[in-house]
Amino acid sequence: MLYNKNTTIAAISTPPGVGGIAVIRISGENAIAAVDKLVVPKSKSVHLPTQSSHSVVFGTIMKKNEVLDEVLITVFRAPGSFTGEDTVEISCHGSVYIQQEILKLLIEQGCELARPGEFSQRAFLNGKMDLSQAEAVADLIASISASSHRMALNQMRGYFSNELITLREKLLHFVSMIELELDFNEEDVEFADRNELKILAVEIGQKIGKLADSFDLGNVLKNGIPVALVGETNVGKSTLLNLLLNEEKAIVSDIHGTTRDVIEDSVVINGVTFRFIDTAGIRRTKNKIENLGIERTYQKIEQASIILWLIDSTQVSEHIEWLTERIAKRAEGKKIILVFNKIDRIDGEEHLILDSLFAPFDAERIYISAKKRINTDILQDALLKAAQLPELQAGDIVVSNIRHYEALKKAQTAILRVIKGLENNITHDFLSQDIRECMFHLGEITGQISTGEILGNIFSKFCIGK
Amino acid sequence: MLYNKNTTIAAISTPPGVGGIAVIRISGENAIAAVDKLVVPKSKSVHLPTQSSHSVVFGTIMKKNEVLDEVLITVFRAPGSFTGEDTVEISCHGSVYIQQEILKLLIEQGCELARPGEFSQRAFLNGKMDLSQAEAVADLIASISASSHRMALNQMRGYFSNELITLREKLLHFVSMIELELDFNEEDVEFADRNELKILAVEIGQKIGKLADSFDLGNVLKNGIPVALVGETNVGKSTLLNLLLNEEKAIVSDIHGTTRDVIEDSVVINGVTFRFIDTAGIRRTKNKIENLGIERTYQKIEQASIILWLIDSTQVSEHIEWLTERIAKRAEGKKIILVFNKIDRIDGEEHLILDSLFAPFDAERIYISAKKRINTDILQDALLKAAQLPELQAGDIVVSNIRHYEALKKAQTAILRVIKGLENNITHDFLSQDIRECMFHLGEITGQISTGEILGNIFSKFCIGK
Repeated sequence: MLYNKNTTIAAISTPPGVGGIAVIRISGENAIAAVDKLVVPKSKSVHLPTQSSHSVVFGTIMKKNEVLDEVLITVFRAPGSFTGEDTVEISCHGSVYIQQEILKLLIEQGCELARPGEFSQRAFLNGKMDLSQAEAVADLIASISASSHRMALNQMRGYFSNELITLREKLLHFVSMIELELDFNEEDVEFADRNELKILAVEIGQKIGKLADSFDLGNVLKNGIPVALVGETNVGKSTLLNLLLNEEKAIVSDIHGTTRDVIEDSVVINGVTFRFIDTAGIRRTKNKIENLGIERTYQKIEQASIILWLIDSTQVSEHIEWLTERIAKRAEGKKIILVFNKIDRIDGEEHLILDSLFAPFDAERIYISAKKRINTDILQDALLKAAQLPELQAGDIVVSNIRHYEALKKAQTAILRVIKGLENNITHDFLSQDIRECMFHLGEITGQISTGEILGNIFSKFCIGK
Repeated sequence: MLYNKNTTIAAISTPPGVGGIAVIRISGENAIAAVDKLVVPKSKSVHLPTQSSHSVVFGTIMKKNEVLDEVLITVFRAPGSFTGEDTVEISCHGSVYIQQEILKLLIEQGCELARPGEFSQRAFLNGKMDLSQAEAVADLIASISASSHRMALNQMRGYFSNELITLREKLLHFVSMIELELDFNEEDVEFADRNELKILAVEIGQKIGKLADSFDLGNVLKNGIPVALVGETNVGKSTLLNLLLNEEKAIVSDIHGTTRDVIEDSVVINGVTFRFIDTAGIRRTKNKIENLGIERTYQKIEQASIILWLIDSTQVSEHIEWLTERIAKRAEGKKIILVFNKIDRIDGEEHLILDSLFAPFDAERIYISAKKRINTDILQDALLKAAQLPELQAGDIVVSNIRHYEALKKAQTAILRVIKGLENNITHDFLSQDIRECMFHLGEITGQISTGEILGNIFSKFCIGK
């Protein structure tokens, strides 16, 4: 993906659809001139090309000598804009028709439709932010919970980059000394104390390892804690799932309109994202195909962190022991919550029988009616307790991007080779090569090392207009 | 609905959902102070309370000493803002979470959530625009076609208001003379030539009538031309409807994401909105309940302007004469388009038989395959031709608001009473009362005459944030 400095890009930057206002962003050396051709400022004394940075002009957008809309034009001059280029933001009435027409007019003026993430990409290429910061912008926009938001913001504000830059500087110092020895190869000198080098390598290895390890948490914070919803057929799994998903969805959409596309089958409870995995009902059968489905349910149990095991209180299966054994085997080491559904339809005596039946099974019990929405708040509390996530602080560095994780793992492998090399007294050149490889992978994260292909891949996942 | 000058309102003004950026708008005397408490400008020398109007500040929004987001703050000072009050716009990253948190922080600072249309209502109450102009803002935002957009824009720019104001001024001159006579009642003088008055009243009546008459066109431009899709059962009505709706929907959503909620069952073809009315299939039956459904189909035919009569070319009903008679009876004076579906499945000879069968029926014929998408472009052209809408020019006044239409009809009734009164030489006081009534109804449209209840009703239909 080549960056052509001569092109000026334009896109609708606000969410798609109808709203009070919408913002169209234009960036590039022709941005101000292109908008100037379309806009007649209300005040005769205003002239866009000489307008100062960070100022707003009220005017009308014209289409073939007719007014298309009354708009606010904000001018940002290079390099003091998000992209580092001349940028104009047109704030228009939020009609889909108007947004589309303004975009068409800009294209007629020679602007190009921005590709997804192209504004952020230009910000990166103009040195306004490094690659991991630019990636954090996309994560920030997609964040739906307090923790995913804080994680992305910390990354965007450069905490992660700074840590990586520090590590790279240490490695650079390290490798310079080794490479200095290389220059004096014939003389067989050692400028760097091998023991000191080893201590440094171990320290760097630990820091990289800690960052890589944080990915488990980062992934859960970003994508949600996987919760498998298991049980026999017809115990009310779908009703419960809809309840958990829709209640919260309804709250979100009350404030912001529908966000279905975003949260999918995830739900945010008190700032924590849970990702619900529905499974095929388990029952004892000799049907081969059905057993294949049940096998897949077992696999999903293994992928989950929390197991919600739903039981129909009115009809406990005769195979309960058989089932208990099977679920317990797969759920080892995971949090299991026993959820007794349809609790409104049994009496006290049946309740006692139920309890004694499951007494041997060591797990938290919740009694609910999914249909009548009884105790679903207690279930939510139990999920939060089972999640047991550490609370992130401002400045905490948590890796949530699989690309970063992979680069860190490669950097870790390289630094471990360095440590081993030092122990085995390998030659300078091999040592130097391993350190350089470690630096390469850390540089991939911040974008100090990057290729057009990598950049294209990263920014194509952004939304348009950012 | 009382307007409390002391409250400061806040709302997300951009479309709901996730996007590159979102804009939160705050208006009221406390707007700048409230935002100042939340934002730390990047530049130490910047101080929001002394920031000049129409200028932009880059800074961070803080939540409990932690950075929530990096934002752009635009300050508009009263009266030079949309609402006429101090206004701040916060342009933040378009994450649903961030939008929601910023709104919460503003509420903690004493801002109130804006009701739908409250910004426009304040603009009206502060004299920034009259009522019909404020209503046009909502129409402008909802406009999906070139014609509905132009209609709303002309109204927003005051062309309609100016016409009404001119009419009211003429009526005021008229009534002043009449009321002057009233003062000299005992002396039985006539300051106003009754013939001249009558000419003026007729002229005003014609202008009001012309405006009221434009509502038919305005309604069609705003809500779409009603097209009834009729035919026997199983002729492919649903396939055709989906084809007509989805094709265009897909085009719209390619550019702007889904707008399903907005266009519903309407589709914009070449800038003209068509509103499709699906109907129950017609067939000859003695089943009472089914006949009730068919009766409803006949009613829908009467509501439509264009009838798309769909026929299965492979299976022309034996009741075709019976059916033709029934449809023709209801569709009198409407445009009928005969659409022969499944045309790919008949041969030339069958085609000739088909044509001769419908030869007596005077209507345009289109031959299509909805399933294979053959000739659907020809069908679209036929619809456009049948629509025969005049092209609106900048400045054309078309009434599209039912409230305006009703007020115009009442004003028309009053002015007709004036004309009749002049013919019958009724007394000054009755004449004056009728003229005043006509003025009252015209004033209702522009908001020169308004009540809290009317205003509440009007603005509650707006979207939030505008």
